[in-house]
Amino acid sequence: MDNSRMDHLTWVTYEQRIQDPNVIVLLPVGALEQHGPHLPLGTDALLANAVSQSVAAQIGAIVAPPINFGYKSQPKCGGGQHFPGTTSLDGSTLASLTCDIIAELARHGVRNVAVVSAHYENQWFLTEGIDLARRRVGPNSPLRVMRLEYWDFITETTLEKIFPEGFPGFALEHAAVIETSMMLHYFPDLVRLDQLPEHPAAVFPPYDMYPTCTHWVPSSGALSSAKGATAEKGVLMIDEVTTRIAAALRKEFIDG
Amino acid sequence: MDNSRMDHLTWVTYEQRIQDPNVIVLLPVGALEQHGPHLPLGTDALLANAVSQSVAAQIGAIVAPPINFGYKSQPKCGGGQHFPGTTSLDGSTLASLTCDIIAELARHGVRNVAVVSAHYENQWFLTEGIDLARRRVGPNSPLRVMRLEYWDFITETTLEKIFPEGFPGFALEHAAVIETSMMLHYFPDLVRLDQLPEHPAAVFPPYDMYPTCTHWVPSSGALSSAKGATAEKGVLMIDEVTTRIAAALRKEFIDG
Amino acid sequence: MDNSRMDHLTWVTYEQRIQDPNVIVLLPVGALEQHGPHLPLGTDALLANAVSQSVAAQIGAIVAPPINFGYKSQPKCGGGQHFPGTTSLDGSTLASLTCDIIAELARHGVRNVAVVSAHYENQWFLTEGIDLARRRVGPNSPLRVMRLEYWDFITETTLEKIFPEGFPGFALEHAAVIETSMMLHYFPDLVRLDQLPEHPAAVFPPYDMYPTCTHWVPSSGALSSAKGATAEKGVLMIDEVTTRIAAALRKEFIDG
Amino acid sequence: MDNSRMDHLTWVTYEQRIQDPNVIVLLPVGALEQHGPHLPLGTDALLANAVSQSVAAQIGAIVAPPINFGYKSQPKCGGGQHFPGTTSLDGSTLASLTCDIIAELARHGVRNVAVVSAHYENQWFLTEGIDLARRRVGPNSPLRVMRLEYWDFITETTLEKIFPEGFPGFALEHAAVIETSMMLHYFPDLVRLDQLPEHPAAVFPPYDMYPTCTHWVPSSGALSSAKGATAEKGVLMIDEVTTRIAAALRKEFIDG
Amino acid sequence: MDNSRMDHLTWVTYEQRIQDPNVIVLLPVGALEQHGPHLPLGTDALLANAVSQSVAAQIGAIVAPPINFGYKSQPKCGGGQHFPGTTSLDGSTLASLTCDIIAELARHGVRNVAVVSAHYENQWFLTEGIDLARRRVGPNSPLRVMRLEYWDFITETTLEKIFPEGFPGFALEHAAVIETSMMLHYFPDLVRLDQLPEHPAAVFPPYDMYPTCTHWVPSSGALSSAKGATAEKGVLMIDEVTTRIAAALRKEFIDG
Amino acid sequence: MDNSRMDHLTWVTYEQRIQDPNVIVLLPVGALEQHGPHLPLGTDALLANAVSQSVAAQIGAIVAPPINFGYKSQPKCGGGQHFPGTTSLDGSTLASLTCDIIAELARHGVRNVAVVSAHYENQWFLTEGIDLARRRVGPNSPLRVMRLEYWDFITETTLEKIFPEGFPGFALEHAAVIETSMMLHYFPDLVRLDQLPEHPAAVFPPYDMYPTCTHWVPSSGALSSAKGATAEKGVLMIDEVTTRIAAALRKEFIDG
Repeated sequence: MDNSRMDHLTWVTYEQRIQDPNVIVLLPVGALEQHGPHLPLGTDALLANAVSQSVAAQIGAIVAPPINFGYKSQPKCGGGQHFPGTTSLDGSTLASLTCDIIAELARHGVRNVAVVSAHYENQWFLTEGIDLARRRVGPNSPLRVMRLEYWDFITETTLEKIFPEGFPGFALEHAAVIETSMMLHYFPDLVRLDQLPEHPAAVFPPYDMYPTCTHWVPSSGALSSAKGATAEKGVLMIDEVTTRIAAALRKEFIDG
Repeated sequence: MDNSRMDHLTWVTYEQRIQDPNVIVLLPVGALEQHGPHLPLGTDALLANAVSQSVAAQIGAIVAPPINFGYKSQPKCGGGQHFPGTTSLDGSTLASLTCDIIAELARHGVRNVAVVSAHYENQWFLTEGIDLARRRVGPNSPLRVMRLEYWDFITETTLEKIFPEGFPGFALEHAAVIETSMMLHYFPDLVRLDQLPEHPAAVFPPYDMYPTCTHWVPSSGALSSAKGATAEKGVLMIDEVTTRIAAALRKEFIDG
Repeated sequence: MDNSRMDHLTWVTYEQRIQDPNVIVLLPVGALEQHGPHLPLGTDALLANAVSQSVAAQIGAIVAPPINFGYKSQPKCGGGQHFPGTTSLDGSTLASLTCDIIAELARHGVRNVAVVSAHYENQWFLTEGIDLARRRVGPNSPLRVMRLEYWDFITETTLEKIFPEGFPGFALEHAAVIETSMMLHYFPDLVRLDQLPEHPAAVFPPYDMYPTCTHWVPSSGALSSAKGATAEKGVLMIDEVTTRIAAALRKEFIDG
Repeated sequence: MDNSRMDHLTWVTYEQRIQDPNVIVLLPVGALEQHGPHLPLGTDALLANAVSQSVAAQIGAIVAPPINFGYKSQPKCGGGQHFPGTTSLDGSTLASLTCDIIAELARHGVRNVAVVSAHYENQWFLTEGIDLARRRVGPNSPLRVMRLEYWDFITETTLEKIFPEGFPGFALEHAAVIETSMMLHYFPDLVRLDQLPEHPAAVFPPYDMYPTCTHWVPSSGALSSAKGATAEKGVLMIDEVTTRIAAALRKEFIDG
Repeated sequence: MDNSRMDHLTWVTYEQRIQDPNVIVLLPVGALEQHGPHLPLGTDALLANAVSQSVAAQIGAIVAPPINFGYKSQPKCGGGQHFPGTTSLDGSTLASLTCDIIAELARHGVRNVAVVSAHYENQWFLTEGIDLARRRVGPNSPLRVMRLEYWDFITETTLEKIFPEGFPGFALEHAAVIETSMMLHYFPDLVRLDQLPEHPAAVFPPYDMYPTCTHWVPSSGALSSAKGATAEKGVLMIDEVTTRIAAALRKEFIDG
Repeated sequence: MDNSRMDHLTWVTYEQRIQDPNVIVLLPVGALEQHGPHLPLGTDALLANAVSQSVAAQIGAIVAPPINFGYKSQPKCGGGQHFPGTTSLDGSTLASLTCDIIAELARHGVRNVAVVSAHYENQWFLTEGIDLARRRVGPNSPLRVMRLEYWDFITETTLEKIFPEGFPGFALEHAAVIETSMMLHYFPDLVRLDQLPEHPAAVFPPYDMYPTCTHWVPSSGALSSAKGATAEKGVLMIDEVTTRIAAALRKEFIDG
């Protein structure tokens, strides 16, 4: 039994845990989306969950079971919907799902919820779900919600170490060095190092087209090279990200 | 890497796998719901996932990541919403979620999908989600969907073995002998044997009340005694259930 | 003018009636669904309405006009959607309809509402509609709602009398002895006794398939034989059902 | 058994009836709404149903069970929501309900559907429901739908006879001479002649206010006097309305 | 900068303006819909906006930016959806849009909102949007909303002047004398006087058909002749309409 | 009459224009949102519309009337919902609105649509609306849609000229140099130069909090200084942006 996993707790233990008004529940949100020939379809959900558990271990938080599906993959940040295996939700579905879960946590008496996303495309539908939950619980609820994308906690200093030749930007990091390195640390058996894509970063025009211009996207599905990914880089980023998320949670929910 | 877990496959491998027109994708659906003082909140999702993987191992199916949240707990089959930790979805959210995922699998070219539920309250919203997905993919789609609740595959003969003193019925089995036995096999570390509830089965009137009459429900959250649960009984049921589900899938999707 | 029919009351009389805080409003919910070659498509709505009026006569309740349409027919309990005439609602439509009506009754000041369903497939969408109505009226509303399926009020003793050769279960009773007998009492002109189906009860596998496996379902649309149905059996069940529903309403809403 | 009532037909008979490509299904739509101190809350549904059956008798049409609830009552045409007993649907609920029913009829193979409304406020949500049904069945469906409000079939000549002192307009006719006269013919027992309101017609400003300005509305709930209503006037209008609706249906669906 | 246009105000000025509890915000709602060969597609939005600004100038109200799209055009009042350029919203979209905007104004602290529509088909979806907004802000909100269609403020006396040969009714006035005259005053450059349609008024049966019977509608798109339209008539109506709307607003929101 | 404004065209002219299969319809989308003490609440809609018209003038496109309201303002890119005047839509409303409009344009026969947004928060709900429209029109529709945010067409070179001391990033540019400069060119009368905020750029943590941490946001509502904004800079950016958007439209829709 993992003390931080909400789905591993009995209701009796959960009830005891949430007596603490400072208790924080983390809700990991991922996706089921192509991540190149070397990373598994579940990469985002696996990372959202793993990062949440690492954070929870530091501050005694509870991790809700992950939302395993995310918003529709876009060419510029996820490669697009045309890759087999990418299994996405409508925006309203993801927002409703987020809303329902958060409103239920608030109904239990939880005051502090953090939505931990690992899929770029989720952000705005999570934001909407949080807003709808707040509307449902009403203006007198003590509920406060943090929404975060884990990569935003990597500092410039670290990015310089990870990308000695220059950081291509988070959007192009889909299935590239950051995700591959973190997966190498957390789930090494799920990374096919022999399939690591090594092509130049994708170059996109300053607009989007629907239906997808599939020729814009590298056929590997990765948006830039994953070469140079290592478990060591993964640890470096994971340590920084989880420490800083833990600090942010403490600041906003406990000390704040 | 588990070959049956869709979230462990790369898109390249997934694409290869679904070239087989007989391939079946299983979608496990659980809940986050109180399961007495001895079973974890995630019992239904854990069992839906575990049963799906056992089935998949027998017939080479693919298991999608689970839907970890289910429909609102009802007193007569899940104890009700008033237990802390029970975290449920609106009916329309669950139906939309099911619809979106199935429609996406169909878009990939998958023809055979089985929705494997381990939470009694899910059934009708899964059914609606399947129907909405079929409306979305249109009448010419080759998509066929099976929806099942795993316990329906336990034979009378086995029930007689498991319940030598008489079977109380599946609804009252919430957090009782069947679920506890199966959890003892699959996830023994998550069962608190020292907390096994031993009270008479709940007795309900032939109607439901909203708001919940909480005094109808045993304070443990279990609806009948979990005493007598053993890992051996778990194996017995799991073997039967998974073998018979595998046979049903073969019959409907491959031989049929 | 029938004093129990809400649609027969003027608003002035209705206003007077609901001054009584103990007044109960019954909302009958049926379906428009095939019921074999011998029973009319409106069987469920007709029975829901008739049972509600019989109950109302006993306790001075008010019966709202029926919801004449229900959720999609399923092969195992209603024969399935493929029979001409079966005219069903989406789950969200039925839930919204139920929600709106109950919330309006609560707005009038009614505290006690009972949803009386005669269509197996309705249950969960009625449940959701009730929950959404309770969300809309807010936690301070005195509204209490009972939801019932009338057949659950038939006792074992009576079932033994009705089915001397053994009761096949409520699901298989679609268009069979129970419904035919009750229709013979309430609406004898609508029963075509010369068309009574006499085939063995349907046998279903422990799962559902979409699209419907129509060959699972007897071509008559009845799921077991209606032979042996009589008006006398109808009376026996109706007396028991309505007396016991009346008692339940008194217990929960008046004495409770 | 009434041959025109769909809910009185077995599925077998219904199937036979709809083999005729000219068959027309009428869907009556009413409301549950105050109709003054002299008419019952169900007036609109009762009239929609009665008119539909009179029409069906003339042309061999089928009448679906009525939608017994309608859109929210407005002060200027129905008195407003503040009268006890007025039990209304959200616009989206009524549109969805209409959509689902029509799409189901089309699925059966019915080509000709007429929505017969007796509640002024319903019109636009019925129109939307019809449009959504047409979107659902797709551009290749042979489905054609007529939507009508029965009073529009009363000719000027007849109005002059009914209102020798001048016709106040249909909106102000709520619970007044037209409806009372028709109810006196169809349902004389439901009209409380001793309660007939006799006040001047309501006078409204050229705008609406929300919340309702209840002082705009006569306290009786009728918008103009029902004095002068007679069963004879009822017959006169009913004959004209039903004959002309029948002619319209023939023209559009059979001869057209 | 136009002091009445909300989109021309800074938030600082807006905040100052709404300190006045009597301040009124007008929300113009139009459509993008064919208006004959002589009036532009945006006629309704242009007029709704212009009338609102004229009113605002008289009473110091604020005009929100217009909703530029409206509900689906109907043959009898707008010609129907089959004319190129008619670009319409689903009913639920228009209701949600109206609801969201009004609820936001109420959140700012605005108590008095008037929805000014210039498109006949909008009325009921605006009404629903207003009702949904009132549900969202809750029963304790001081929000009051007026909904109006500007043409209802033209008096009989004026109509007699405008239509010396008899007024065909507002529905048939689509793209005819009233709208053309008002456009000639407000937007003379947008009226193609050389294209003024001069055909008899359309004659419609007392029902509607879906799909649209396009042959019912004059091929020009106007429902009656625009001949006789002049800027002078426009001024006459505009003066009356805006003066009377201003008076109504004062009466309901300030003096009332 | 402006030949590019769709709301200024008659349906006859519009019909002629869209005979050209290369014709492009631009849909401007803005917001009603605080833009500091110096820019009006309608800045985003005004700019979206102005940029669209400038583009249209270059390539003979048609500009639909703008969507004047946008998604909820976020602290990090728009200051947040707490500023009076910010009037925002739910995500589902904006997506439905976008969907309906695009599907209608496709119904007219338009093949090429570009959604031109000037409000950062809109992006994902526009994307969803486009996807829902594509689902509605079906896979055989020739419809293609571009979605763009105008600022993405400003080149690095130009940014260096505009921000000689370094570019703070587009998110922090809310109500700052870019928007102010463009407004100074297009709508100089709407800019209050005497109110230009001159504070350091806001500094945000790498996460979001709900409810909004209002102390994160400069009290002016601008996220960085607007000092240095000039009409000349506005022209420079506008020329570049509109020329490059025109080129992109030509490439994708005409030459491509």
